[in-house]
Amino acid sequence: MESLKQFLVALSAAAAVGAVAVIFVLRWVLYYKEGLGWDGGLTEFNWHPVLIVIGFIFLQGIAIIVYRLPWTWRCSKLMMKFIHAGLNLLALIFAVISLVAVFDFHNAAAIPNMYSLHSWLGLAVVILYSTQLVLGVGVFLIPVTPVSWRAVLMPLHVYSGLLLFTSTIAVALMGITEKLIFGLSNPKYKDSPPEALFVNVLGVLLVLYGALVVWIATRPSWKRPPDQTLHTLHTNGEDEDNTKADQSLSQLSGTDADACSDVRKRNNLSDDPTK
Amino acid sequence: MESLKQFLVALSAAAAVGAVAVIFVLRWVLYYKEGLGWDGGLTEFNWHPVLIVIGFIFLQGIAIIVYRLPWTWRCSKLMMKFIHAGLNLLALIFAVISLVAVFDFHNAAAIPNMYSLHSWLGLAVVILYSTQLVLGVGVFLIPVTPVSWRAVLMPLHVYSGLLLFTSTIAVALMGITEKLIFGLSNPKYKDSPPEALFVNVLGVLLVLYGALVVWIATRPSWKRPPDQTLHTLHTNGEDEDNTKADQSLSQLSGTDADACSDVRKRNNLSDDPTK
Repeated sequence: MESLKQFLVALSAAAAVGAVAVIFVLRWVLYYKEGLGWDGGLTEFNWHPVLIVIGFIFLQGIAIIVYRLPWTWRCSKLMMKFIHAGLNLLALIFAVISLVAVFDFHNAAAIPNMYSLHSWLGLAVVILYSTQLVLGVGVFLIPVTPVSWRAVLMPLHVYSGLLLFTSTIAVALMGITEKLIFGLSNPKYKDSPPEALFVNVLGVLLVLYGALVVWIATRPSWKRPPDQTLHTLHTNGEDEDNTKADQSLSQLSGTDADACSDVRKRNNLSDDPTK
Repeated sequence: MESLKQFLVALSAAAAVGAVAVIFVLRWVLYYKEGLGWDGGLTEFNWHPVLIVIGFIFLQGIAIIVYRLPWTWRCSKLMMKFIHAGLNLLALIFAVISLVAVFDFHNAAAIPNMYSLHSWLGLAVVILYSTQLVLGVGVFLIPVTPVSWRAVLMPLHVYSGLLLFTSTIAVALMGITEKLIFGLSNPKYKDSPPEALFVNVLGVLLVLYGALVVWIATRPSWKRPPDQTLHTLHTNGEDEDNTKADQSLSQLSGTDADACSDVRKRNNLSDDPTK
């Protein structure tokens, strides 16, 4: 119960900080910069930070912690895997469109591509993220992969996922630094105009969001209980309020949870927690 | 045995990548830039990247994984705590001197301080790192703290330590970006002169070093075994080669290990793994 309360506080904080970061990036490009468009100019470039923050950071963070949400524990593991993979795919699509925007802008303005550390690490993260997604689907979603492989590869999958997420934020901080140096001329970045302070705060928000998501993802007591435990709780009814999972499920049951529960019953569930 | 071999591969990779990063930062300032000095000019600024990479990144990384080295498992936990705290203190001293260098340089050149996201996050990391060090000594090193407090605070200490380490690297990447934009004029950063490519590689090395250190620190099977296990092995002799700790200790025993072992015997050991 105490653990659930702490989880909800951390989750609310992450959601709030992430949402404020999204508002900040939108205000940055719509109020301080040139707005959004698709004409090869600065309005097209502006899709780059917007899509990265909304898609490649905020959505990726949600994809990471989606298994931790207690009201999804009634859903089958398979359905949760599809949601996890789907959110990651959506985040990747946002990232790819944001790359197209910045390459278009560079080409139209005769600015070289791929010269900065930001571009090197950014492209590396997108390529590795795609690889992680393909391997993740191949190993954990397609049911032909041997269970022993899954168990061995799961720690690597989790580590790589968190490494890519934190790297995404580090690359975004470098991008913010570049844009504030190149994009502010009179007054300059070093003169601390309101835009500079505002976007610095956006950077701080991204770090806070990353810190909260990693905290939520790495608390062992907040992990989705093994299917066997959930199955037992399900079979025995929910009035035996003696475990964390049971408490959470009892408190959080509702229409959606019941819908998930139905799906869960229809699915051929495995008790393998790595599945 | 397999686990030990994998550990040694990861450790060697981390040490090699970290050492190459140190060589890269030295070559950057000594060959491409103005060298090192303490005159308020660019030679003084150059201490900033040098001390950050050597002290606040390389040494901090070693401080984080020092408990994982199997040849230290014969040392008392207390001695290892002193080494862990000492390395972190040394890293902090390097960071503080590197800040003095950059503030001196800014003041002499009439460049404003603390306007960039790099400076905001960098100062925040140094302040939080100091706080972590003081709290760490107060909670885990001074023996009056209740064991229950230690157990509750240990996950937070570990999480904060890794968060500060990864943030340090993210801040360094932003610093590299700033310096390459401001420090290269003809040719510029976007023209990709050799210095730009060289320092971009330094950035990649720092990310690899961080990834390896976090991997080593977060593998459960590479953790220092609880004192009780080590104590039992010690009392029963080392010929019962039936556990990972025993295997590692048997293979890695030597003069230093024996010296630690003596210290360990003199100390009043506790079986509390959080101590």
